Amino acid sequence: MFEIQRIVQTALEEDIGLGDITTEVTITSGTTARAELVAKEDFILAGIDVAEKVFKTVDSTVDFERLLQDGCQVRKGEVLAWLRGSAASLLTAERVALNLMQRMCAIASLTRRYVDAVADTKAVIVDTRKTVPGLRVLDKYSVRMGGGRNHRIGLFDGVLIKENHVAAAGGIAEAISRARVKLPHTLKIEIETRNVDEVEQALAAAADIIMLDNMSLDEMRQAVELIGDRALTEASGGVNLETVADIAATGVDIISVGALTHSIKAADISMLFD
Amino acid sequence: MFEIQRIVQTALEEDIGLGDITTEVTITSGTTARAELVAKEDFILAGIDVAEKVFKTVDSTVDFERLLQDGCQVRKGEVLAWLRGSAASLLTAERVALNLMQRMCAIASLTRRYVDAVADTKAVIVDTRKTVPGLRVLDKYSVRMGGGRNHRIGLFDGVLIKENHVAAAGGIAEAISRARVKLPHTLKIEIETRNVDEVEQALAAAADIIMLDNMSLDEMRQAVELIGDRALTEASGGVNLETVADIAATGVDIISVGALTHSIKAADISMLFD
Amino acid sequence: MFEIQRIVQTALEEDIGLGDITTEVTITSGTTARAELVAKEDFILAGIDVAEKVFKTVDSTVDFERLLQDGCQVRKGEVLAWLRGSAASLLTAERVALNLMQRMCAIASLTRRYVDAVADTKAVIVDTRKTVPGLRVLDKYSVRMGGGRNHRIGLFDGVLIKENHVAAAGGIAEAISRARVKLPHTLKIEIETRNVDEVEQALAAAADIIMLDNMSLDEMRQAVELIGDRALTEASGGVNLETVADIAATGVDIISVGALTHSIKAADISMLFD
Amino acid sequence: MFEIQRIVQTALEEDIGLGDITTEVTITSGTTARAELVAKEDFILAGIDVAEKVFKTVDSTVDFERLLQDGCQVRKGEVLAWLRGSAASLLTAERVALNLMQRMCAIASLTRRYVDAVADTKAVIVDTRKTVPGLRVLDKYSVRMGGGRNHRIGLFDGVLIKENHVAAAGGIAEAISRARVKLPHTLKIEIETRNVDEVEQALAAAADIIMLDNMSLDEMRQAVELIGDRALTEASGGVNLETVADIAATGVDIISVGALTHSIKAADISMLFD
Amino acid sequence: MFEIQRIVQTALEEDIGLGDITTEVTITSGTTARAELVAKEDFILAGIDVAEKVFKTVDSTVDFERLLQDGCQVRKGEVLAWLRGSAASLLTAERVALNLMQRMCAIASLTRRYVDAVADTKAVIVDTRKTVPGLRVLDKYSVRMGGGRNHRIGLFDGVLIKENHVAAAGGIAEAISRARVKLPHTLKIEIETRNVDEVEQALAAAADIIMLDNMSLDEMRQAVELIGDRALTEASGGVNLETVADIAATGVDIISVGALTHSIKAADISMLFD
Amino acid sequence: MFEIQRIVQTALEEDIGLGDITTEVTITSGTTARAELVAKEDFILAGIDVAEKVFKTVDSTVDFERLLQDGCQVRKGEVLAWLRGSAASLLTAERVALNLMQRMCAIASLTRRYVDAVADTKAVIVDTRKTVPGLRVLDKYSVRMGGGRNHRIGLFDGVLIKENHVAAAGGIAEAISRARVKLPHTLKIEIETRNVDEVEQALAAAADIIMLDNMSLDEMRQAVELIGDRALTEASGGVNLETVADIAATGVDIISVGALTHSIKAADISMLFD
Repeated sequence: MFEIQRIVQTALEEDIGLGDITTEVTITSGTTARAELVAKEDFILAGIDVAEKVFKTVDSTVDFERLLQDGCQVRKGEVLAWLRGSAASLLTAERVALNLMQRMCAIASLTRRYVDAVADTKAVIVDTRKTVPGLRVLDKYSVRMGGGRNHRIGLFDGVLIKENHVAAAGGIAEAISRARVKLPHTLKIEIETRNVDEVEQALAAAADIIMLDNMSLDEMRQAVELIGDRALTEASGGVNLETVADIAATGVDIISVGALTHSIKAADISMLFD
Repeated sequence: MFEIQRIVQTALEEDIGLGDITTEVTITSGTTARAELVAKEDFILAGIDVAEKVFKTVDSTVDFERLLQDGCQVRKGEVLAWLRGSAASLLTAERVALNLMQRMCAIASLTRRYVDAVADTKAVIVDTRKTVPGLRVLDKYSVRMGGGRNHRIGLFDGVLIKENHVAAAGGIAEAISRARVKLPHTLKIEIETRNVDEVEQALAAAADIIMLDNMSLDEMRQAVELIGDRALTEASGGVNLETVADIAATGVDIISVGALTHSIKAADISMLFD
Repeated sequence: MFEIQRIVQTALEEDIGLGDITTEVTITSGTTARAELVAKEDFILAGIDVAEKVFKTVDSTVDFERLLQDGCQVRKGEVLAWLRGSAASLLTAERVALNLMQRMCAIASLTRRYVDAVADTKAVIVDTRKTVPGLRVLDKYSVRMGGGRNHRIGLFDGVLIKENHVAAAGGIAEAISRARVKLPHTLKIEIETRNVDEVEQALAAAADIIMLDNMSLDEMRQAVELIGDRALTEASGGVNLETVADIAATGVDIISVGALTHSIKAADISMLFD
Repeated sequence: MFEIQRIVQTALEEDIGLGDITTEVTITSGTTARAELVAKEDFILAGIDVAEKVFKTVDSTVDFERLLQDGCQVRKGEVLAWLRGSAASLLTAERVALNLMQRMCAIASLTRRYVDAVADTKAVIVDTRKTVPGLRVLDKYSVRMGGGRNHRIGLFDGVLIKENHVAAAGGIAEAISRARVKLPHTLKIEIETRNVDEVEQALAAAADIIMLDNMSLDEMRQAVELIGDRALTEASGGVNLETVADIAATGVDIISVGALTHSIKAADISMLFD
Repeated sequence: MFEIQRIVQTALEEDIGLGDITTEVTITSGTTARAELVAKEDFILAGIDVAEKVFKTVDSTVDFERLLQDGCQVRKGEVLAWLRGSAASLLTAERVALNLMQRMCAIASLTRRYVDAVADTKAVIVDTRKTVPGLRVLDKYSVRMGGGRNHRIGLFDGVLIKENHVAAAGGIAEAISRARVKLPHTLKIEIETRNVDEVEQALAAAADIIMLDNMSLDEMRQAVELIGDRALTEASGGVNLETVADIAATGVDIISVGALTHSIKAADISMLFD
Repeated sequence: MFEIQRIVQTALEEDIGLGDITTEVTITSGTTARAELVAKEDFILAGIDVAEKVFKTVDSTVDFERLLQDGCQVRKGEVLAWLRGSAASLLTAERVALNLMQRMCAIASLTRRYVDAVADTKAVIVDTRKTVPGLRVLDKYSVRMGGGRNHRIGLFDGVLIKENHVAAAGGIAEAISRARVKLPHTLKIEIETRNVDEVEQALAAAADIIMLDNMSLDEMRQAVELIGDRALTEASGGVNLETVADIAATGVDIISVGALTHSIKAADISMLFD
C-alpha cells in the first residue's frame, strides 16, 4: 500500500515541483469546476483507483465518482469518472492521473488480446520483470486486470535459474540442488532450458517448473510430452500476437510475455471540463 | 544529479528487494565473469551512463567499459559496453540496467525518426509532459539524444495557458495579463489557441508563444502567416509520423509530440556472458 | 505542496526530536488552553498558513482561527490568530511556528520598503537565489507578500548567463547562441553585462533580458537608453534602501536585491496564553 | 554527521533541481577552472568544511584546499580556500556554498561581538532555539566558533520550565518536582522566573538553573545575590549589544541571546575565478 | 511523534512489502470480522497505542477499542482490546502489532521485577543504550511503563565520560573540565569510575554523577559513603535479578540494567477472531 | 543491500543524533587508537560484516580487520576483529555495532542449539515472522548462520493460509483453489491444519505444504504417515528445546520456531582498547 502512495507522490513531485505556476496565476482561488474522464477509444480499464488517489493527494476535497470498475471493457465515449472540486486542483492533477491510467489501461488491453488468443487452450499468460522501473506494482496489477497472471514480482520472491546461473554452478543438477537446500521451502524452483537434453536434466533434478526458452514449436511439443505431469512448463522468448496461439497449442502451462509491459501504446483518455 | 540516483536506487530496490535469491544460492561467492551489452537491432543509443550507474550501484567494483556514446547510431550486433566483475553482481543488475536503457534507446530512436521527417524545414521536434511517471528526466534526456528538444520539464518551469485556464480567467487577454504581472520575468508566456480568432487575441495580448492546438493544416498555415515574427508557433495534437512532415511544411517553429514518450517499443538489447 | 510539508516536518523533527521532555512531565495530559499570536511591532504579514500547518502537524485537533491574511499590514498589538487546544501541543509547536513566521514577516516587510522606495517608477523589485538553504520556497513567497516578484526559483527554471559562463563559452554571442538552440523555447535568455560594450554584444545576440551588473548610475542610464524595447533590463549589485530609488530612476525594468532574504531581522511575534 | 549531509543535499536539490541549465548548455564538458573564496569584509570564519562538502557533493573530484580554520578572524581580502576542478561543477555549487557559509560567518561574527562585550565578566554568551528551521546544527556550531556556548539543542535534550508550564502544573514547586522524578538524572532542571518571589520559590524547590526573564538590572542583581552558589543564573530577554555589558555586570552566569541566530546580516564572501 | 510513525511504517513495509498475497486471494473484499487481543500470560502492559497505530495505518477504518492502559498489570486471559473491521486488514496487520507489543510488554514486565526487587531502598532502576537498534524510543518507553526511569536517550543528550574518554583526555580532572567549559550548562556531567581512587578524583573535579562500574559491593558501599551528597551515584555492571537488591542496599541512587532491553522473552499475546 | 544500509544508518541516527557530545569534548581531534572486539562467552558468530559497516559508516577511514567468519563457533576470549583508527570514531560507533552483533550472535547460537537437537532426524529448523520489527533481514540471516533455514520473509513472498483465511474463504478446498488460480505459479501453497480431518482436506486440495499446528505428538505422527510424499509437513506451535527432538522424531520435514528471534539473550561481546 505504501508503494502506490510512493508512486503517486513521486509522480506529482516530478510534475509539480514547487508549483503549477500557470494555474496559480490564472485561476482565481475558490473557482470550482466539474469534469469527466472520458475514453477516446476502446480499452480494458485499469487504474481508476490510482487516478482517484492522484486527485485526492493534490486536494483531498476533490469529489471523484468512479463509474466503472477496473477490469471491465470500456467503449469509446464512455465516461470513467465524474470529478468536481477546485478548478486549480483538477488542472494540476490532470496530467499525472492520465499518464498513469493511460499506461495501465494499455497494459490491461494488450494482455487481454494475448489472453483471448489462447482462450481455447489451458495456457496462462504471465508477465515478466521487463516493466518500467518504479512502476512494477502497477504494471503487474494491470496485467491481472487484463486477465493475465503474474510471474514472480522480483528477484526476491521467486527462483528462476537461468543459463548463466547453471554455468556458474556447474550444471543443472548442482544448481537445483543448491537452491533446494538453501531456499525457503515455500518457493518452487524454476529452471531455464534450451533443448530437450536440458529438459531431461531438469526433470532428473526434480525441478518444479521448467522454462522452455526460445525453443521451436516442435521442441516445445516434445518437451511438453516428455515432462507430462512431473513439472509445470513455461514458454518464453519470441512470443507475440502472431505466435502465441501456436505456442499455446503445444500444451505448455504458462506463456510469459515481455511485451505486455515493455512495448505499449498509451490508451487514449481525456479529462473534459463541463 | 540526485534524480538519476533516486531512479536507479528505486528501480533496484523494486527488483531486488531483500535479495536476488536465485543468484545468492547458485553462484559461489568470488566467481567472476565477463559480459557485453549487445544491440539486437538498430537504434539510437541513450542511457549508457545510466546502465553503468546501475551496475556500479549494485557493486562498485564492477568494470564497465563504455564503447559508444549516447546519441550515436548503433547497428544490430554492435557491442555497447564490456563488463567484468563478480558474476553475481552482473546477474543481479542486468534486468534493471536493460529495462532502463531499452526504454531510453527506444525514445531516442523514435525521436530521430520524427526529426528526420522534418529535416528540410525549420521545425523543431519537442516532447511533452506525457512521460512515464518517475522517469521524466530520463525520458526528456532521451529525446535530446534523438535530436529533439525539450518542452518545459513540468508545471513549475514553464507557462502554458490552456483552454481551461482561459475559461477560468475570463478570456485570453486577462489570462496572459495575469501571468505577465505575477510570474518571473525569465519565463515566456505560451498560450493554447484553437482557431484563428484566438490566435488574434493571443497576438493582441502579446503572447510569446502561440500553440496551435488540433488545427487543420490550412488553419495552421493561416495562423503562421498571421503571426509572422511576433511570436513563436507550436503545433500540437494529431502529430504522428504520417502527418509530421505536412505539419512542418506549414512553417510552424515547434512541433510537440506526445508519442515520443507515451507509446514506445523497447529497443532490443542483451547482456551476453563470455 | 510537498515542499512546505517537508519544511514543517524537518523543523519539528529538529526541535522536538524524541520529545518535548519539559512539557511531557509538567503538563497533565488533557489540559487545554487558549492562546493568541500577537504582533509586538508593525510588519507585513506572511506565513500565517505555515504557522497553522505547524500546529496542526503537531496535533490535528488544535483549533487555529486566522484573523488576518498574508500580505496585509499588521500593527503592533494586533492579534494574528486565536488558538485553542491541548496545552501541551500548543507549547510544543510554539517555537517552530514563530521561527518560521518571524522570518517570513521580516522578509515581506523589508521587501515592502524596497517596493515603496521605487513606487513612482516602473521598476519591479525581485529577489535572488541568496535565500536560506532549505527555505527558498518560503523566502520567495514572502517576497511576493511584500509586493516584490520572484526571479527564477533555482538553476533549473531560468537561464542566467554570468561572466564565467561567457568566459568559458568564448564570448557573449556564442554563449547566447548555445542556450538558444539547446534550451526549452519556453525560457527567456538573460545575460550578465558589466559595461556598455557588453550590453551591445548582448543586444546583437538578441538576449531577452540584460542584467546590468554593478554599473554606475550613469552607465545604467546609458545602457537603458541603448537597449530601449529590445530587451528587459535588470539592475543588480550594490542595491540597498539608500540607493534603490536612484537606480530605479535610471529606467531599468527590474531591480534584484539579495538583502531581501540574506540579511533580515526577525519580526517580533509572541504567543500569549489567556 | 547525517544532519550536515541532509542539509547540504536538501540545499543542493532545492537550487539545482533537475539541472543547472545555464551551465549545462554554455560550458563545454571537460573545461576546468581555478577559483578562490575571498572575504569581502572582516568576519569570524565558520563553515569552511560545510562549503567543501557542498563542492564535493556536486563533484567529488573538485580540489578544495582550505587555507584557514573555522573560528579564526578573517580580514577583508583574505583568501579562505583555493578550488580547482570542472568549471561546470564550481559554478553549479557556488551559490549554495556561499549561502551557507555567509550565514555561518555572520553568526560567528555577531557572537564574537557579544562575547567581547562581556569579556571582563564571568558571563557566558549562549544561543537559543530561535534558529532558522532546518539549520539549527549549523547555527549552533557557528555560535561556538564565535566563542559562545550552546543552550539546549532542542526540546528533547534539556529541561526549561517556562511560565506556562508552571501555570499548568500548579506552581513552581510542583513543576520542578514532577521533572525531578520523571526525567533522566543526567539533565539539570532550569526554570524561568520573572521576579524575586519566583526566584525564591525556585531556590526552595532546588532548581539547578534559574532563568531571570526580562528582569530589570536591579532585579537581576538582587536575584544573583539571593541565589549565590545554589543555582546557575541565566539572564534572558532584552539582550542586545547596548545592554549586554550591564547585564553581565550583574553577576549572572549565563546570558542567552536570540539575536545571534534570528537577526543576522550575511557576511560578504565571493568566489572569484582566476 | 514522527519516530513512532517511522517505526510502524518501517515494520509494515518490511512485513507486507508489495502485498499480503495470502489474504488478498483468500478473503473476499468486504468481509468484516471481530477480534480481540488476549493475554496468554501475566505481564505489565505496554504498547497498546502502538498496536492501535499499526492497525490504523493498515486501514484507518478499523475500530480499535482499548480496554486497558499501558502500565497496568494484566492477568492471563484478560482482553486488552476489541477490534472490528475488514477481515483482510486485521489479518494483514496482526503480526506486526503483536511483534511490537509482545516486546514492549516483556520489557515493562522485566523492569517491574527489578523495580520490585529494590522497592525498600531509594535506588532507581534505569535503562541503558543497549536497546534494539531502531526501536529505542519504544524500548525506553516500556521501561517507564514498568516503573523504571530512563538514562540518557543517546549520545547526544547526556554526558557519560568513560574510561577510554578519560585515557584519551589525560585524566579525570582534565576530561571533566573540558566537558564543563564546552557543553550546554543544562547537562550534568557523569563519569565512570572503577575504584575508590577514581571516585576521589571525580569528586575533586566536581562531577555531578559518579558511575561505580563493576565494583564489588564493598567498594560500592565505600564509594557511596565517600560521595555523600556531593554527587549522584550510579551502579553499573553485573546487575541481575539475583544481585540487584544487594546492590541497592549499598545506598546507590541509581542502578542501570542493560538486560532490561537486550535480553527479553516476548510476552505471550494472541489475536483471536470471534 | 539497501536494507542493511538503512538499518545501520537508522541505528546510528538514533544513537548519535546531532552528535556524541561526550566524545567531541573529551577526545582531542587526531587521537588514534587500537581496539579489538572480544567474545566474553561462547557463541556462533553472526554480524561481523554488519559491525564493520557500522564503523565504516561513522568513519570510512577506520581499519577493520575481520579475524573470523560468520557461522563459525567462537570461544570465550577469542578476538573477532581488530580495529584501528580515530579514537573518537571508535567510541562513537561502539555501542551500535555491539547492539547489532550481540543480537545476531544470540540468534545464531540459539538456532544452532535447535539444529543440534534434531541432528539425527531429517527435520529442518526454520524461523517465523516473529522477528524484531525493522531487523528482519538480519534476524533471518542470523538463523541461517546458526544452521537453520528461513520460512517466507514476509507476507509478500510466500503463501500461508491460516485458520482465519480458511474460515473467511469458506473451507480449505476453496481457499487453496483461490490461491492456485490467482497467485504466481512460482509459489507453493501452504495451509495450516489443526487435526487429521483438516489434513485430509488439505491433501484432497493438493496443498504443497501442510502445517501441523499445535498438534500432539500422536496427531503429528498420524498426519505425517497420512501425508507421505504428497506434501511437505511443517510442525508449528509449542516448540522449545525440550520438545523439539520429540517433534522431529515424528518425521515432519520442517519445524518452525518463533523463539529463535522473539526471545533471545544478547551474546556478550566487548570492545577493548589497547
